[in-house]
Amino acid sequence: MRTGQTQLFIPGPTNVPEVVRQAMNVAQQDMRAHDFGDLTLPIFADLKTLFRCETGRVMLFPGSGTAAWEAAITNTLNTGDRILIARHGQFSTLWAQMAERLGLVVEAIDLAWGAACPVNEIARRLGADREGAIKAVFVTHNETATGVTSDVAGVRRALDECFHDALLFVDGVSSIGSLDFRMEEWGVDLAVAGTQKGLMCPAGLGILGVSDKAMAASRTATMRRAYFDFADMAAMNAVGQFPYTPPTPLLHGLRRALDRILREEGLDAVIARHRRLAEAVRRGVAAMGLEIVAEHHSICSDTVTAIRVPEGVDARDVIRIAYDEFNTSLGSGLGPLNGRVFRIGHLGDLNEAMVLTALSVAELALVRAGADLRFGAGVGAAQAHFAAQRGTAPRMQIAAE
Amino acid sequence: MRTGQTQLFIPGPTNVPEVVRQAMNVAQQDMRAHDFGDLTLPIFADLKTLFRCETGRVMLFPGSGTAAWEAAITNTLNTGDRILIARHGQFSTLWAQMAERLGLVVEAIDLAWGAACPVNEIARRLGADREGAIKAVFVTHNETATGVTSDVAGVRRALDECFHDALLFVDGVSSIGSLDFRMEEWGVDLAVAGTQKGLMCPAGLGILGVSDKAMAASRTATMRRAYFDFADMAAMNAVGQFPYTPPTPLLHGLRRALDRILREEGLDAVIARHRRLAEAVRRGVAAMGLEIVAEHHSICSDTVTAIRVPEGVDARDVIRIAYDEFNTSLGSGLGPLNGRVFRIGHLGDLNEAMVLTALSVAELALVRAGADLRFGAGVGAAQAHFAAQRGTAPRMQIAAE
Amino acid sequence: MRTGQTQLFIPGPTNVPEVVRQAMNVAQQDMRAHDFGDLTLPIFADLKTLFRCETGRVMLFPGSGTAAWEAAITNTLNTGDRILIARHGQFSTLWAQMAERLGLVVEAIDLAWGAACPVNEIARRLGADREGAIKAVFVTHNETATGVTSDVAGVRRALDECFHDALLFVDGVSSIGSLDFRMEEWGVDLAVAGTQKGLMCPAGLGILGVSDKAMAASRTATMRRAYFDFADMAAMNAVGQFPYTPPTPLLHGLRRALDRILREEGLDAVIARHRRLAEAVRRGVAAMGLEIVAEHHSICSDTVTAIRVPEGVDARDVIRIAYDEFNTSLGSGLGPLNGRVFRIGHLGDLNEAMVLTALSVAELALVRAGADLRFGAGVGAAQAHFAAQRGTAPRMQIAAE
Amino acid sequence: MRTGQTQLFIPGPTNVPEVVRQAMNVAQQDMRAHDFGDLTLPIFADLKTLFRCETGRVMLFPGSGTAAWEAAITNTLNTGDRILIARHGQFSTLWAQMAERLGLVVEAIDLAWGAACPVNEIARRLGADREGAIKAVFVTHNETATGVTSDVAGVRRALDECFHDALLFVDGVSSIGSLDFRMEEWGVDLAVAGTQKGLMCPAGLGILGVSDKAMAASRTATMRRAYFDFADMAAMNAVGQFPYTPPTPLLHGLRRALDRILREEGLDAVIARHRRLAEAVRRGVAAMGLEIVAEHHSICSDTVTAIRVPEGVDARDVIRIAYDEFNTSLGSGLGPLNGRVFRIGHLGDLNEAMVLTALSVAELALVRAGADLRFGAGVGAAQAHFAAQRGTAPRMQIAAE
Repeated sequence: MRTGQTQLFIPGPTNVPEVVRQAMNVAQQDMRAHDFGDLTLPIFADLKTLFRCETGRVMLFPGSGTAAWEAAITNTLNTGDRILIARHGQFSTLWAQMAERLGLVVEAIDLAWGAACPVNEIARRLGADREGAIKAVFVTHNETATGVTSDVAGVRRALDECFHDALLFVDGVSSIGSLDFRMEEWGVDLAVAGTQKGLMCPAGLGILGVSDKAMAASRTATMRRAYFDFADMAAMNAVGQFPYTPPTPLLHGLRRALDRILREEGLDAVIARHRRLAEAVRRGVAAMGLEIVAEHHSICSDTVTAIRVPEGVDARDVIRIAYDEFNTSLGSGLGPLNGRVFRIGHLGDLNEAMVLTALSVAELALVRAGADLRFGAGVGAAQAHFAAQRGTAPRMQIAAE
Repeated sequence: MRTGQTQLFIPGPTNVPEVVRQAMNVAQQDMRAHDFGDLTLPIFADLKTLFRCETGRVMLFPGSGTAAWEAAITNTLNTGDRILIARHGQFSTLWAQMAERLGLVVEAIDLAWGAACPVNEIARRLGADREGAIKAVFVTHNETATGVTSDVAGVRRALDECFHDALLFVDGVSSIGSLDFRMEEWGVDLAVAGTQKGLMCPAGLGILGVSDKAMAASRTATMRRAYFDFADMAAMNAVGQFPYTPPTPLLHGLRRALDRILREEGLDAVIARHRRLAEAVRRGVAAMGLEIVAEHHSICSDTVTAIRVPEGVDARDVIRIAYDEFNTSLGSGLGPLNGRVFRIGHLGDLNEAMVLTALSVAELALVRAGADLRFGAGVGAAQAHFAAQRGTAPRMQIAAE
Repeated sequence: MRTGQTQLFIPGPTNVPEVVRQAMNVAQQDMRAHDFGDLTLPIFADLKTLFRCETGRVMLFPGSGTAAWEAAITNTLNTGDRILIARHGQFSTLWAQMAERLGLVVEAIDLAWGAACPVNEIARRLGADREGAIKAVFVTHNETATGVTSDVAGVRRALDECFHDALLFVDGVSSIGSLDFRMEEWGVDLAVAGTQKGLMCPAGLGILGVSDKAMAASRTATMRRAYFDFADMAAMNAVGQFPYTPPTPLLHGLRRALDRILREEGLDAVIARHRRLAEAVRRGVAAMGLEIVAEHHSICSDTVTAIRVPEGVDARDVIRIAYDEFNTSLGSGLGPLNGRVFRIGHLGDLNEAMVLTALSVAELALVRAGADLRFGAGVGAAQAHFAAQRGTAPRMQIAAE
Repeated sequence: MRTGQTQLFIPGPTNVPEVVRQAMNVAQQDMRAHDFGDLTLPIFADLKTLFRCETGRVMLFPGSGTAAWEAAITNTLNTGDRILIARHGQFSTLWAQMAERLGLVVEAIDLAWGAACPVNEIARRLGADREGAIKAVFVTHNETATGVTSDVAGVRRALDECFHDALLFVDGVSSIGSLDFRMEEWGVDLAVAGTQKGLMCPAGLGILGVSDKAMAASRTATMRRAYFDFADMAAMNAVGQFPYTPPTPLLHGLRRALDRILREEGLDAVIARHRRLAEAVRRGVAAMGLEIVAEHHSICSDTVTAIRVPEGVDARDVIRIAYDEFNTSLGSGLGPLNGRVFRIGHLGDLNEAMVLTALSVAELALVRAGADLRFGAGVGAAQAHFAAQRGTAPRMQIAAE
C-alpha cells in the first residue's frame, strides 16, 4: 500500500490548493435560485480579467477543455471551411483531427515535435491566401506534449499585416492563468482553457473566451450544435445561469481559485512564479545531463517540461517506478514520444519545495530505470538557483557546486 | 443572512449523502496512471447493474444529462432521420427541439402537460410506418416538469408487435436509480441519466446506456461528432480511461453512491423507498386541498410531484418565500406551468423527516403567498401515512385525524 | 440502513454550519510557527466580545466543557473552600459533585428539577455569611437538563448588596453565544462554555472566561493543577500559542463560527433568533397538549426545551423511535427525568424549517410510542407563529386554525 | 502569499492521510445514541492491539498528550509518592515538572540531552530502594526533543530483577504506532500517546494505556481528580460512551487511521517503514556534514532526528527561512537546544519523496542561513540509500556518488 503524500507533477489536473479544496466541500444548491447569479456573474467577470479579455465574453461548458475546443469550432465555422494549423505535438495534432472530424478542411503545417508554431510560415500562407479561403488559424499557445510555448502575438501580427480576416483560435489550456496571455491585445477570437490546469481546480468545466467577432460569426454559422450552442449559453449566462445543470461545487472552487490568482497572489506574480520555478526545473534537468524536447530555450514552456531519457532507458519505466515505488506522478511521453520522454508539470499551485521533490524523485526513478546519473546533481542545481534568487551571495553558490 | 440547514427539495441536483460527500473530498490524481482503471472499471460495471443492462455498456461523458442526450443522437442517427416523440412536458419538448437542431425530422405527438407517453398512439404510428421511416422513438421515462412516469415497457411492446426496427431512446435522467428501470428487458437502446438525481452526486457527468444495437448503429452513423464520439470513448473506457480529463472527485463520489445503492440499501429497496415517500407527499398535497399536474394516479412519478397552486396565488411567490424566508428550495413550474405550479423533488437521499419538512415549509410558504390552508393538514396526512406504514394501529390513526 | 439527512435536535453537539465545516477541512500545521498567533489571537479577542468580557480574558482548554469547569475550580479555589450552589438539574448536580470531588465544601440548595436558581435564597445565605466563608457561588445559567434559564444578574446583585466577595462561577455551556450573557456587566468571574453548543463547532475545546479577580485568585490558590494551569496557559496565549498541541482544525472552525456570529449575523440577532425559534417550539409543544419541565414561562430556556411525555408513554421509546425509524436525534431525559422527558435542542445553527422538522418528527415518534395526539397540531401551531412573525394577517391565521 | 503544498516535517502534529481527512469530514451526531458504541468500542479494541496491550485497557481523554500524562499520575499515585525519572530532554523534563506540581517527590537522574534513559542507573537505584519508596518509574520511550529512543524493556527487566513493585509509566507520545512498543510484554502500567503523532490525526485526544495493576491502583489512589477520573471513564467506556462530549470527527479519523495501520499497512510494516525512512534521513544529515543530537547510533529515534547546525549558524534562522521562503515547517530546538538544533519529524504518514523534500529544503535553508554545504549532498545520500533498498546494483550506486 502507498503511504505519505502523493506527489502530482503531471501537467494537469494540477494540485488543488487547500483553500480551493475547502471551497468545494459544499452541499448542493438550486441552480435556478434567484441569487445563483451572485455566485456565477462575478466568476464570468473574473474570467474575463484572467483572459485579459475586455470586449468579448468567457463561457463555461460543463465538460473538459476538449468540449470547449468543439464549442469553439461548431459555433463559428461552417462545414468545409479551411483552417490553418501547425502540428507540432500531440495536442495540436488532436485539435487538427477534431477539426477534420467536424467537417473542416485542415491545412496543416507539420513540424518536428519540439518546434513552436512557425509564425513566418503562417504569415506566408496567409499572405498567399488572396481569396480569404482560410477561415481560421489555430494556434496551440502551449503545446503540453512537448513543453513548447508559441508566439500568439506574432500570429496576430501576421494576420493584421496582410489584413486577413480569419478567426484566431488559441488553445490556452495549459497557458491561460499561468503564462502571459492577452486575448484582447492579441486579437484572439476563441481562447480555450480548462479548470484543471492553471486554475488549480479539478477537471469538469471547459472555459471558452469568445470575442465579439466570434460571437457575430456564431449568429450565421450553420454547423449543427445543441449542447454547445453559444446563443443558449449566452442567454442563460446573462442572468447568471446555465442551460443545464452545472457542477456547482466546481463553480465554488473556481470562485476561490480566481480570488487567489487575481486578488491574493496577483496574475503578474503568478506568471512570474511560473517562470522562476520553470527555470529551476530546466537547470536541474540540464545538470542531470538530460535533453529537453523544446528545440530552443526561447520557446521553453514555463508550465511543463518534456525531458528525453538517456539511450537505453525506457521513459515508461521511469514513470512507473516513480508512481509505484515513490508515490509520484510524472507525465508520460505522448504519441511518438512515448517511452522516450517523461514530463514534469510545473503549473498551478506550486512552490520551490515541490520542484525539489519532483527533481529528486525523477533522479531516483531514472537511476532505478537504468540511467547513469549522479544523485543530487539536478536537485543541487535547482537549489543553487533558488538560493541565488533569494540573494545568497555568488561565492556561496560556487562553494556549493 | 441565512441560518440553519438549507433544505433542498428540487428534483435535482439532489441532496448528497454524507458518505458521498466525504468520498469527493480528495486530492487530484493522474487519470493516466496504470491503476486508474481500479477506480473506473468497477464503476462502469456497477452502472450496468444500475441500468439493468446486460449486453450493452454504460458510458460517462463529462457534462450534463443534456450532453448525454446529444451523444445518444449524434452517434446513432443520421441527418434527416425521422424520430417519433411525445411532447408532454418541458423536458420532452426540449429533447425534441434538440433533435430538430441536430438535423432530425421530428414527428411529435403533442399532449397536455400532465399526460404520459401515449403508448397506443405510438403503436398506431409505428404500425403505420411500413417503410421504417421512423428511425427512433424517444420516450421521456419520467417527465420531471410534470411529475409523470411513462410506460417504457409498453413502447417496447409496441415496437416488437409491429416488428419495428427503430432505436428506443429513453430519457431516464430523473428515473434511473430511483424508479424501476430495465434497459435490457425493455430493449432500450440509449438510456440517458446524470449524476445529480438518483445517483445523489453533484452534476458533472452525463451517463449513457448504449445497447449493442446502438453501438452497431454508431459504426455507420454519419453525423459529425468528436467530443461525444462513442468509438473514442469505448476505446479508452476499455482500459479504464477517458479520451480527455474526467472530473475525478465526482468519479469517487459516484463510486461511493453506487456502493450505497447497490450494496448497502439495495436497488429494489431504493425503488420501494421512493414509492413510499412519494405516496406520503401525494397524501399531504391532497390533504392541503391542492391538485397535482399528473393526470392520473397511475402515472404519478415517485421522484417528483408537480403541484398546482390555488387560484389567486402565484407559484413563483411560494417558491421565493420558501427560499428567502425559510431557506428551502422548491422546484419551479417550467414553461407554461410557470407561476401556476411548484414542484417537490423527492428523489435520491431522502427520508420521512425530510418529506415532513418539505410539506410543512410548503404549507407555510403557500399561506404566506396568500393561499387559504389549514396549517398542519398536509403534514398530518403524511405523518398518518408514515405511522400506518410502521404498523401503528388504525384506531390510533383515526383518533389522529 | 439509514437514508437521508440525519436530523440533530439534541442540545449539543449542535449542527455545524456549512461554512464552519469547510473551515475545518484543513491540513495540519505547526502550532509553534511564528505566525500561529495570526490565527489564535483574534480568536481570543473575539471570544471576549462573545462573552461580553472587557477586563478579563478567555482561555481555550483542549477538552470538553467539563474540563473548563475543572480548570475554573482548581485555579481559583483552595481545598476546603465553601461554595454555594443550587441543584436543580443534572448539570448543576454534576458540577456540585465535581466541586466535592476536588475537595470543596458544597453548600447545596436542592430544588425541584424545573426550578431556576433561587436568587432570593442565594441572597439570604450570602447575607448570613458574615465571615465570608462562602468563597464562590456557582450558577448554572442555562440548565440543559430541564430547559431552565436562571438570573445571573440577580445573583450578582445579591453579592453586591451584601458586599460579598465570593467569586461568581457561571456555567454558560448552553447559553453563551445563544442567550444574553454579560460577563463584565454581571461581574462573572469564571464563565464556562464549550465549542459544541452555541458556537456550532464539534466538541474539543473547553472555553473559560476569567475575570481579573479570578486571575488574581489563581496566583495564590494552592490546589494542585498542571494541565489546566492558568499561568502556563496565559503565558503561552500571550504569544498566540498553547502549552501543548491544540486541535488546529477546531481552531479554524471556531474562527469561522465567530465571524459568523459576531460579524455576519450579529450577536444580538443570534440571541433574538433563538428567542423566536424557541417560542415556536413551545407553542408547538403546547398545541400537542404536552407539558414542559420548566416551572414557569419566564424561565423557559431559549436553547433547549424539556418535554414531559403523556402518562403511559416511555420517553425512551419516543427517542429510540425518532432515531431508528426517522433518523432524528432528540435529547433524552437525564437522571430522574429519564423515561419521563425528551428534549429538543434548539440552539446554534437553526432555522424555522428545522423547528418544523423537529416538531413533526416528535409528533410522529410520540404517536408511534403510544401517545394520543392529533397529527399536525404542534407543527401547525409553530407554522402559525412563524406566519404571524412574518406579518401574515391575523385573519389568515384564524382561518388556518 | 504562500503557494503550493505546505510541507510539514515537525514531529507532530503530523501529516494526515487523505483517507483520514475524508473520514473526519462528517456531520455532528448524538454521542448518547444507542449505537454510538458501534463507532467507539472497536476503536478501544484496536487501540489495545496498537499498544500491544492484552490484559489492560486503553482510554481516550479529550485533550492533549499532556492531559493523558496528568490522568496517569492523578489516578494511580498519591501525594508525596516518590517517582524515579531520567531528565534527558525537554519532554522528560516537563513530565518531571508536572509530577512535582501534582505533589510527587521527584527523584531525577539528570543526563546530557542526547543520552537515553540510563537503564543501569535505574536498576541500581531500584535495587537500593529496599523499602519500596519509589512508587513509579517514568520512562520517556522516545524523547522528541533530542531524537532518542530508550530501552523500556530494559527498565522492566530492572524492575523485575529486584522484584520492585513500582508502576512503570511510559511516555510513548512519539513512539506508539511508529516504533516497536509492547505494553503487555514490557509490563508497562501507564502508556501515554496522542492522536497527532503516529496516529496521523489532528491533536485532540490524549490516549492512555492502563494496565490492570494501574487500574487497581486507581481504586485506592487519593489524589483529587474529576475530569480525568478512571472510574468515570471506564464506566462510560464500557457502553461505548464518554462522561462528557467527545470530539466525534476525531473519533472517525482515529477509526480510519487504525484501520490503515492495523489492517492495510500492518503495524510491523509501519514500524519497518519508519526505520527505513529514518535511516535515509540520518544518512542525508551525515552527508551534509552535520551532527545529530543523539549520542549514539543505537539510540537514534526512527521518528524524529534532532540536528545540530554548524558553528556560526542560528538554527532559528534555518527554521524561519524554511517556513517563510519555502513553505516548510521544521521542528525547533527546545530549551537549551534552541538556536543550536533543528529537528526533522519523520513519523506518521510519510514516504521516500517526503524525506527527499525535507532534506532538500533543509539544505537550502541551511545555506540561506549561512552554512557552507554542497547542494544536493544530503539528498543524494538519501537517494542512494533508497535506490539500494530497492535493489539497484551497487555498481550503479558507486557510479552515482
